[in-house]
Order: sequence, then C-alpha cells, then structure tokens
Amino acid sequence: MRILVANPNTSESVTERLLAVGRAAAAPGTELVGATAPRGVPYISSRIEAQIGGAVLLETLAERAAGFDAVIVAAFGDPGLGAARELLDIPVVGYAEAAMVTALMLGRRFAVVTFTTAMEPWYRECIEANGLQGRSAGVRCADRAFTSIDSVQAEMEDHLVALAGRAIVEDGADVIVLGGAPLAGLAARVRGRVPVPCVDAMVAAVKQAEALVALDPAKPTVGNYRRPAGKPSTGLAPALARRLAEG
Amino acid sequence: MRILVANPNTSESVTERLLAVGRAAAAPGTELVGATAPRGVPYISSRIEAQIGGAVLLETLAERAAGFDAVIVAAFGDPGLGAARELLDIPVVGYAEAAMVTALMLGRRFAVVTFTTAMEPWYRECIEANGLQGRSAGVRCADRAFTSIDSVQAEMEDHLVALAGRAIVEDGADVIVLGGAPLAGLAARVRGRVPVPCVDAMVAAVKQAEALVALDPAKPTVGNYRRPAGKPSTGLAPALARRLAEG
Amino acid sequence: MRILVANPNTSESVTERLLAVGRAAAAPGTELVGATAPRGVPYISSRIEAQIGGAVLLETLAERAAGFDAVIVAAFGDPGLGAARELLDIPVVGYAEAAMVTALMLGRRFAVVTFTTAMEPWYRECIEANGLQGRSAGVRCADRAFTSIDSVQAEMEDHLVALAGRAIVEDGADVIVLGGAPLAGLAARVRGRVPVPCVDAMVAAVKQAEALVALDPAKPTVGNYRRPAGKPSTGLAPALARRLAEG
Amino acid sequence: MRILVANPNTSESVTERLLAVGRAAAAPGTELVGATAPRGVPYISSRIEAQIGGAVLLETLAERAAGFDAVIVAAFGDPGLGAARELLDIPVVGYAEAAMVTALMLGRRFAVVTFTTAMEPWYRECIEANGLQGRSAGVRCADRAFTSIDSVQAEMEDHLVALAGRAIVEDGADVIVLGGAPLAGLAARVRGRVPVPCVDAMVAAVKQAEALVALDPAKPTVGNYRRPAGKPSTGLAPALARRLAEG
Amino acid sequence: MRILVANPNTSESVTERLLAVGRAAAAPGTELVGATAPRGVPYISSRIEAQIGGAVLLETLAERAAGFDAVIVAAFGDPGLGAARELLDIPVVGYAEAAMVTALMLGRRFAVVTFTTAMEPWYRECIEANGLQGRSAGVRCADRAFTSIDSVQAEMEDHLVALAGRAIVEDGADVIVLGGAPLAGLAARVRGRVPVPCVDAMVAAVKQAEALVALDPAKPTVGNYRRPAGKPSTGLAPALARRLAEG
Amino acid sequence: MRILVANPNTSESVTERLLAVGRAAAAPGTELVGATAPRGVPYISSRIEAQIGGAVLLETLAERAAGFDAVIVAAFGDPGLGAARELLDIPVVGYAEAAMVTALMLGRRFAVVTFTTAMEPWYRECIEANGLQGRSAGVRCADRAFTSIDSVQAEMEDHLVALAGRAIVEDGADVIVLGGAPLAGLAARVRGRVPVPCVDAMVAAVKQAEALVALDPAKPTVGNYRRPAGKPSTGLAPALARRLAEG
Repeated sequence: MRILVANPNTSESVTERLLAVGRAAAAPGTELVGATAPRGVPYISSRIEAQIGGAVLLETLAERAAGFDAVIVAAFGDPGLGAARELLDIPVVGYAEAAMVTALMLGRRFAVVTFTTAMEPWYRECIEANGLQGRSAGVRCADRAFTSIDSVQAEMEDHLVALAGRAIVEDGADVIVLGGAPLAGLAARVRGRVPVPCVDAMVAAVKQAEALVALDPAKPTVGNYRRPAGKPSTGLAPALARRLAEG
Repeated sequence: MRILVANPNTSESVTERLLAVGRAAAAPGTELVGATAPRGVPYISSRIEAQIGGAVLLETLAERAAGFDAVIVAAFGDPGLGAARELLDIPVVGYAEAAMVTALMLGRRFAVVTFTTAMEPWYRECIEANGLQGRSAGVRCADRAFTSIDSVQAEMEDHLVALAGRAIVEDGADVIVLGGAPLAGLAARVRGRVPVPCVDAMVAAVKQAEALVALDPAKPTVGNYRRPAGKPSTGLAPALARRLAEG
Repeated sequence: MRILVANPNTSESVTERLLAVGRAAAAPGTELVGATAPRGVPYISSRIEAQIGGAVLLETLAERAAGFDAVIVAAFGDPGLGAARELLDIPVVGYAEAAMVTALMLGRRFAVVTFTTAMEPWYRECIEANGLQGRSAGVRCADRAFTSIDSVQAEMEDHLVALAGRAIVEDGADVIVLGGAPLAGLAARVRGRVPVPCVDAMVAAVKQAEALVALDPAKPTVGNYRRPAGKPSTGLAPALARRLAEG
Repeated sequence: MRILVANPNTSESVTERLLAVGRAAAAPGTELVGATAPRGVPYISSRIEAQIGGAVLLETLAERAAGFDAVIVAAFGDPGLGAARELLDIPVVGYAEAAMVTALMLGRRFAVVTFTTAMEPWYRECIEANGLQGRSAGVRCADRAFTSIDSVQAEMEDHLVALAGRAIVEDGADVIVLGGAPLAGLAARVRGRVPVPCVDAMVAAVKQAEALVALDPAKPTVGNYRRPAGKPSTGLAPALARRLAEG
Repeated sequence: MRILVANPNTSESVTERLLAVGRAAAAPGTELVGATAPRGVPYISSRIEAQIGGAVLLETLAERAAGFDAVIVAAFGDPGLGAARELLDIPVVGYAEAAMVTALMLGRRFAVVTFTTAMEPWYRECIEANGLQGRSAGVRCADRAFTSIDSVQAEMEDHLVALAGRAIVEDGADVIVLGGAPLAGLAARVRGRVPVPCVDAMVAAVKQAEALVALDPAKPTVGNYRRPAGKPSTGLAPALARRLAEG
Repeated sequence: MRILVANPNTSESVTERLLAVGRAAAAPGTELVGATAPRGVPYISSRIEAQIGGAVLLETLAERAAGFDAVIVAAFGDPGLGAARELLDIPVVGYAEAAMVTALMLGRRFAVVTFTTAMEPWYRECIEANGLQGRSAGVRCADRAFTSIDSVQAEMEDHLVALAGRAIVEDGADVIVLGGAPLAGLAARVRGRVPVPCVDAMVAAVKQAEALVALDPAKPTVGNYRRPAGKPSTGLAPALARRLAEG
C-alpha cells in the first residue's frame, strides 16, 4: 500500500523525520512517500498559517495524490483535512485526528502536550472540531524559547515530560498525545518517564491510514465528504482548478 | 465608521447585493466598502472552496484592510474568520456568526435555511464550531436546481418559506436564519410569510460590526486571537508575507 | 429609534449611569429613556431578588413600553427576560445576554468578572440558561466589602483588573465581560490594563437593541415567545392584568 | 413531618387535587398542608405567569413556611424554586424537578407529556435548567381545547395515552412524566395503558420531600442557596420584606 | 414494604452498617433485608471487581428477590444496576444513583468525596453514565492508608471533611455526596462541619426505593429495561439460568 | 504479533467467523487466536448477558492472555472492556469501540445498524459511555425474526442495507457501523449498495489492535487503567483470583 505523507509545512527536515518515524511503524508492504509544501511557512502554529497551509495542501493533493491508497495530512491541527476528504476518493487521515482517536483506546482523558504556546488556541479548536472535549484533559504547552524546529524535540524533552506529569496530576489526563510534527518519535524516547501511555501522532497516523485502507471504504456519493459538483474557478493552481471543474 | 465587506467569492454581483442590503441597515455615518475575491469560485459551497476562499481572503485583508474600522467576512460559513482575527487589529465579524448570535436574542432554537444541499455539511460544522448546537434546530436545504446565483433568491422564495415552516413544525425552530450571501435581503421580503422572526445575515453582520466598533475592543496581546509571532514564509502574496514576517 | 432602558433595580443613580454610558454608544437617532423599578431592592444580587425584580419589571413594561421600538432589561442576569419577550411585540434585549453574545465575536471563552460573590450562583445559571457553558471560562467575583453601589466601580477597579488577569491566566478566558449594572462604563476605563477585549454590557445592550430593531423581526405567532392566550387574573397590577387578559 | 404544598396557581380545586393525591402517597406521619396563591392566574402556562407566580410564591413562603419541615413548589416548571431555596432553611422540592429526578431511576430517557402546547417552551427550559437534556426525550403536548382545568384530566386521558405512545415510539422515551398539576393522579389511572413507567409528579414530589427531610441537610452557609445578606427593600409584602432585611 | 439491600461486596460488616443506617431512615412499615455477596471481594474498588460483583449480584437477585417490593444495589458505582433492572419486575435503585439524584435537589453541583483514590476512575464513569457531568463538581479522594474497611470512616473523618471543604472552594461544589458503602452514616456525623448539605447515600437509597414503590411503576414491556427474550445459557448459576431461559 | 480474539459469547461459529474476517484484514505477521466463552449465552443482547459475559471474559483473560501482544474483546458493546484494561498489561481493544473510533475518520456522524432491537438500549449506552453522542446518528435495528445467529447475516442483508439508507436520509448519518459479531464480513458484501462508507467492526478491531501494539504503550502506573492493588477474594475462578491477589 502506498501512503502519501503530505506535510503542509515547508520544512523538508520535518518531512524526513515524519517518514523515518512512520516507516519504522508501518506494516510490511506499506510504502510512505513524502510531499513537503512548496510554499508557506516552516511550521504552522497559527490559524493564519493553517488556513494558508491547508489551501496549499489541496494544490499538492490535486497534483500528487494519484496512485496512492491513502493520504496523511501531516501537521497537528489537520489543516485542510475536511477539504481533502471532499477532494479525494481515497482515505485521508489527519495527524492530530489519528493521535486523538487512538488515544481514546488507551485512556478516558487525553492531554495534548506540545512545544509552544502558539499552538494552544488552534489545538483546542481542533479537539472541539472533533467533538472530543468530553474525552479531553486539555492542552499543555511549553512556554520557553527553543533554538530550531529540528532541535526542539531534544531541547524540550525534560520539560515536556514535566508538562505531561502536570497534565496527569492537575488535569486528570490518563493518556498523553505529543502534538506537533517536530515531536515525532519522542513518545518512544520518553516511554519510561511518563506513568501513562504516550501517543506518537505519526505512528498513529500511519496505523490509522493502514486501518482505513484495510476497510476499503466507498467514496460517499451523498452527504458529508461526497465530491462537490463541478464548478468553474479563476486564478487557482491548474491541477486544483481542473479537479474543481470536474467535480 | 468604515467597514470592509470582504467577499471570499468571486461574484461581483453578490458583493453588490450585500452592499445594497447592508447600506440600508447601516447607522448614519457607517460606510461600507466591498472587496470581491480576485480568484477562487463564484460562490463557496464546499470545504474545499472554503479552505481556498479563506486563504485568498487573508491576501485581500493584508492588502486592503488598512484604514478600516472593522471587517465583515461576507460568506455564510465564515471562511478564514479565525485567521482574519489573528491577522488584524480591528474587529472582524463573520457573516454566519453574526446571524447566529443575533438569532440567539430572538428565540431559543434557530434553524438555518439555505438554497442548496451542498451547503449542509459545511453549515453544520459552522454551527458546531461556534459551540451553538444546543441552540440550533439544524439546517434545512433546498434540493432543487436553480438558474443562477443572482436569480436564486427570487426562484426559491416560496420553497424557502416552505422549508422554514418545516423547520418550525418538525425541528422546533423558533427563529430562522437565511443562510448564503445570495439570499441577502430575502428576510424582509418573507417577513409576513414566516410565523417567527427571520434573520438577514447581512443586516446582522453590519449591526454586529457596528457593535464591536462601539466597544472599541483592545487587540489581545495574550491568548486566543493575539497576533502570531513574526515568521518567514515562501511563495505567499507579498502583502500577506510581509504581515506574517512582522508578526 | 426609542429604546426603553428598564432597570429592575430601584436605584435611580444606576439608571442614570446606564443612560449616560448607553447614550455615548448609541447611534445618531437612537433615544434612550430610563425606567427605574418603583419597588424592590437597590440592586439585585440573588435569585429571590431576581424573581421579584422580574415580576415588577413586567408591571413596568405593561405600563410603559408602548411607543418604544425596543426594550433593554437593564440588570445583569436578565430577570424576567423570557417573560418580557412573551409580553411585548417589540425586541427585548437582556443586559447579560447582550454582553455574552457580543463576547462570542471577540474570543473563544468569555469570563464574567463582577464585584460581589453574591452574584456568582445567579450569573452561572444565566450562562447556562443561555446554553453558552461551552464558550464560558466561568465567573470571577470580588470578595471584599465596598462602600456603596455608586462608588463600587471606582473602589474595585484595581481589584477587578486583577481578577480579569486571573481569569485569563488560570481559567483560559480570552475576553472579559464586566458584569453588574454598577460597572457600566468601566470597560473603557480599564481598556489599557487588561490584555484581552473587555465588554461593557450597557454598550453591548444598546448596540444589540439597535441590531434587533434594524432586523425588524416579526412577533412570533407560533412556538416560543409567541403571545400567550388571554387569561383572567386576580390581584395583579392593572396594566399587567389587562395585558394578560388580552392575550 | 409537615410539608407545605405551595401552589403558585390561584385554583383551590387544583390544590385540593394535589393534596388528595399526595396524601395517598405520603408515609405514615407525613402531614400535607396546602397553600393556594392569593393572587395571580388559575394555572400558570407561560413565562410571564411563571415570573409572577414565582414572586407571589415567595410572599406566601415568607408568611407561611414557619413550622414546616419541607416545601413543595406545586406547579410543573417550578416557578421560584431557586429563590425559595435561598429564602428558606428547610428543604424545598420542585414539582417538575421531583418528577424528573425520579424518572432518572426508571429509564434512560424521559418524555414530559402534558395537556396544552402553551406549556412546551417553558417545560423545555425547565428540563434544560436542570441540566437533564441528555436524559430527556422531549416534550409532547396535547393540541386540542378542553373545557376546564378541573375536567382536563378526564377529557384528555385517551389523547395523553396516545401522546405517550408516540413519545416512546418516535422519540425513544422509556419513561413518561405527566406534566402539569391538573394531571395529578392520572399516572395510576393509565398504568395499564402505557407500556413503560409513568411518573406522577405529585407522588414524586411528596416522596422526594420526605427523602430530603430524612437527610436533614444543613442550610448552606456558603455557595449556592446560602441565605443572601440582609438588604433593604421598598414596596414589597411585609413578611417578604422582613425576610429580605434579615438576610 | 420489603426492600432487599443487595451488597455486591462480601463484607457482612458493611451490610450490617448499611442496614443500621437505612433502618434509621426508613418510613414506618418499611422493612430492610440484607444480602451479602457469597463470593467476590470485601469491597469493590475497581472495574474488574465491579464487573465480577455485578454478575454475582444478578445470581443473588435471581435467587432472593422474590417477595420484595424493591431492591437497592448497595455499592457506590452501582455494579450491575442496568442488568438488575432488566432482570426484575420491581424497582431497583442504585446506591450512587440515589445519592446523585437526591443531591440534584440540594445544590447545583455535587462533589463525590470518598476514602480511596482507587475509586476515582470508576466513580467518574458512574457520574458520566448517569449523564450528570453538567451537575457534577468532580470526585475528591483521600490518598492515605487506612487500617480496615470497618474503621475507615472513623479514621478518615477529619480528612474527608477537609476534602469536602476543598471541593467546595476549589471545585465549586455546593452539595457533597459521601461515596462508598463503608461511609454510610458519616453524613450525619459531619453535618455541623461542612458548610453545605451532605448526602448519605444509604439514606438516599432507602428513601428513593420508597419513592419508586409509591409510584408503583409498570414493568416496561418495550424499550429500555424491558425483560429480555428467553435465551438458553450454559454454566450459569441455576436460578439465574432459569430466569434467563424464561425471559 | 499475536492477538487474542476473546469472544464473550459461547458460539464457536461466531468466533470462527470473526477469525476468518480478521485474518483477511491482518497485516503480515499478525496472528489471531480465538477464545470462545466457556459459559454464558450464545450471543449477548442485553445488559444482563453483558454483565455476565464481561465477568466470564475476565476469567478467560486471566487464564489465557499470557504471551499475547493485544486482546480484542470480540462482542459489540464491549462487555468487560474497562475491567480487561485494568487486568492486563497489554493493549485491549473493544469491538464496538474500534468500529466507532475508526468511523470518526470516515464521516461526521456514524449510525450503528444491527440485526435485532434487543441490542438497541445497550448499544446506545455504549455510544454514550464512549462520549461519542455528538458524533453519533443513533442506532437502527432490524425488527424482524431470523432463523439463526449463523444465518442472520445472509437473511438480513437486504433489510440492513435499507436501514442504512434510512439512517443516512432520516438521521443524517454519513458513515455506517454494522454492529454485532454475527455481521462480521457483511460490510464488504454491501459496499456497492450503501452510498457512504461502511465499517466492519472486526476489520477495525484487528487494525486498531495492530495500531496499539505499534505504539507500544506503557501500562499506566497511575490514574485510570492502572493495575488495582492486590486484594483477597473468595469463590472466584483460580486464575482470576490469583490475578486479583497479585495486584
């Protein structure tokens, strides 16, 4: 099975990290191919950037999704996820969505722990948009500076473990979701240091993509996520415009 | 006070209709200026189109919002609303949001009535994203073809009145929100034909924009809707890229 | 447009404060007229007082609402609001309701900050009665004595700013509603001292009343807020009894 | 134990019916004493009437509650219940509240069935005010005329049984609450005709009052339902004014 | 009336305590008979133990419920409650359920206070299973060791009073439910030391059982809690197997 | 990886069906081993049977789970799931839980469609226990007789497709979960006949078990699902009693 890991961020290094973590978790026969956003920001951490990144993602998918069995929207917060589901006939998995639904099977209340307070409002909205507030113990964010998106995982490890501990004791969390693509791979590293399960969002995303492919779901022809009717457009990327025109 | 009516659709005729309806409702001294999306689709009716339209909206706002006192995101469903609030220092009102919060003061449960089933999933998500499910009586959509976006209001009038009646009797609605920019102005026309209040979203948007300007709210410097930190970007529209870089 | 500001409290001085703040925010052509409760308590701060004040309010409205375009129930907690909507054919706005629905457009979670713990249970019920718990960050109340209802705003200013700060940091609020009629006008005074938007309930109430008048909503003839059928009564104030008898 | 059955309606005949049904269900040693509202309407069926009836109830309680062990607010919808709890040091039970909490132990979703559509909005708000929407299957109301409040129970019996059946089949109800004081005693009459349990609100109210007396709960000195601080008032009924002044 | 107090725990001493507290609260003519689980654990404090204890309870009820008017499932958390309702034709009351529904009439938000953290996850699920999260202020558990289940009430009294105080001040509780059968009788002891009402779950259970018997509810023949169709089984306790076979 | 498929029903034929469907979906290297309940009922369709089946399941797991990497509780409704998570150190997946969390990634509202109305109350509680009401479009049950649990899938196919259609049109479902172990394998058969995705619960369960094993979650040592402290017991199955004693 071929899975497209579509990173709405422009950081090739993050895409590489995601692929490395994902490949280690993939089943035999699952191939992961990365696609990094051709324009946008190095890593999305606001609604502005998510709005833009989600639109760029659609261009990428219109150009590159052909021949894949599933797509992973590879940024926590899942920019453009619903739109991608309308656009494509194959399963699409959100990075945050996959982590959260997996967490539902490991505890009663998951906390999202991430590396910058900039993420907080957007992550909260993501939890609410998934209708999972009742299973959520909130979001805990590191409030300190870091050197680079590539080193943040190593720099923050101890601090994120401490935040996870506070989420457990103060917020009643019994499972931890490590949010943010730059943290891919961290869950395994801190496994012995957090007293409840930690979910690696990239591992979850790959396994959930495999799950959806195994189900071989029909593309809806009615209701939510059906393909929109064809519509003319102006000024959009050619592949995306063609896709919109077809319906 | 100067309000920018930013239409994420590319239909100039819809912008004109919105301005006409809005100006009739505006207080003395309120000036409305329209901005139609330079690229995208004639009218947004899917998440794909909302994702794209919201991103184009941000480009428009980065270029044109200077000198205005408030912005109306003039498409039901409010594409890019949260991002626009982060981007700007002035109040931003969503077209659907304004209609819904106004409806809260006219009844206990509002129904959204609109002219195409294509809108339904997106409108439902919009209600949920506003946390108003408990005050909502759902969405009722016309399921018949129409000639053009400019004539849909006249073509559908009787059918939409009938749908409003069903929302009242079958769904327990006690206030009707007429959704979709092409229906601006219809509420006044059907006032005598629907036994509960009808909310014209454009009228609501203008008055809510005036309300927010009267409050003169501070731009948040913490928490939600604060301006994101400056960040480099690649390949984005110049004005938007500059705005992102500034932070 | 003429708006009746019906204060269910017996404090003329509070009515005067409300009118002063409201007139400064009103659009050209909007006239505000005050009506202070002829009997009851100086300021309502319990359910007992709200039950009584709401009933006295209905007497006032039965006597005085004729000739007005809208009514503001001018006490936070909105005593008698639903009943007033049944009673009258013109729009009725609740003071707390107006502040809360306006706050929905300025943040994701509003906190109500007020000057006495006596208000807390009643304000919490008010938030729940509006179905807005999901958008609320709770209620913060000053727990210290004050000299008089007329001086409380000045006496408490620093303390209320501190409470707003705690609501933001500890409760996740991103917009502050200053509750209680005696605090009308305070939001503008503390604008520079609170890092998120503050909502002045009286300003919100006037603008929301203008919004509803602009919509010119039909009096419902079915469902919620329709006028009740005529009914005999005994021992009630003459104007109110007449109104009940008419139906 | 002595329980005051305070009827906020002015119908002595309804009070008599409530006492007859309640006495048949009371434990040995439980004495029920009735108090009919001295002013107001024959039966409350709107928010206007509930607002007034609740205020009159407080006057009655201030005058007559001394020497009782508990109070039943004997009208479905529970006008003035919260205020009565603040006012008195003894347990106060709401007629609708008692029926609903009892229904929670007989099924997963209760439907309220009553004799006039006038009740519907107010009853829905009552369910929501108790935070029981998740356990509710809604409200079903007879939509036909009846001769008098005293004969409505007999006139409507077959129709109400049919409405209960629809609530079970169409709304998923598995327990039926017969709402409205004029229906006291009907549940036993239709016991064989409805395939799920029916709750008689008056029976429930008496047994819940006995339950609260058995618990001998302390009057709260903090938080919700504590006695409000003493406060001056003008123009109120003497006993109630005294009670407010004491605090 | 005869009520079977079915204790899913194997501790005779706890059964005796429950009967002593219950008999003191019972109405004249109410007889309480105890039944202690013949196998299982001394006191249930995990889901494992609740799953087993609930199944053993069904064996006990199949053998012993004949001739009783109601059953109390006498362990906080109510193991097997729903199943017991299906199994029997008489009212069944849950120990935790009775305490919680009674608490709804004494405050807006109840906190459950108990003597070991082991209970916390299970008690939280119990509150959610009853759909009462919106009325709950959470669960507070003692985190210290105790000598024996029979002495825990005396050993913990001061600590539980302190926890109740924290639930009131920090969690906004305005009524306290003392959870766990070993705490039966404690509420009366601490009455003067907690500033809000305390609910004794055993007292509540007895009075709620009396309430349900007074209502004489019909056994549902449709929907939830109807008796399941007869079904063969293998290896189950004879009386339970017979009951399943009958349907 | 070795996964134990623990069927709380006594039907070997159902276990065989589950294994056949599961093995077809399993990744290379995943081995499925079945365990059928040694006592209980042929298929669980009531809370009574779920309470018993869940307890028997714990005996089976105490005896047989050693050496496996994960467990599937292989009955829709997930009897004993929470208890199994406490009992074991390896991941445990619920059959219904797996289907529902997978459905969250295929639509906004899932409907559960099953073959007998007996399942309805229990399935509804299962959805609520997972906190997924907001994502649920309810439960649709066939109301007709069938010959045997082994033939029900073939007998009901057309009827279940029709029910799925009604769930989509009348209830707003956009993804269908086929509930009940006897329906394993049906989703693929009806793929072309239902216009939205159908989830096969067994396929979902196997893939979710693989996902959890890939995450290698730590056994919680605090909070929810930690192993309970050791406790003596009487009369329980030896292996289970040993497990309880160890803690």
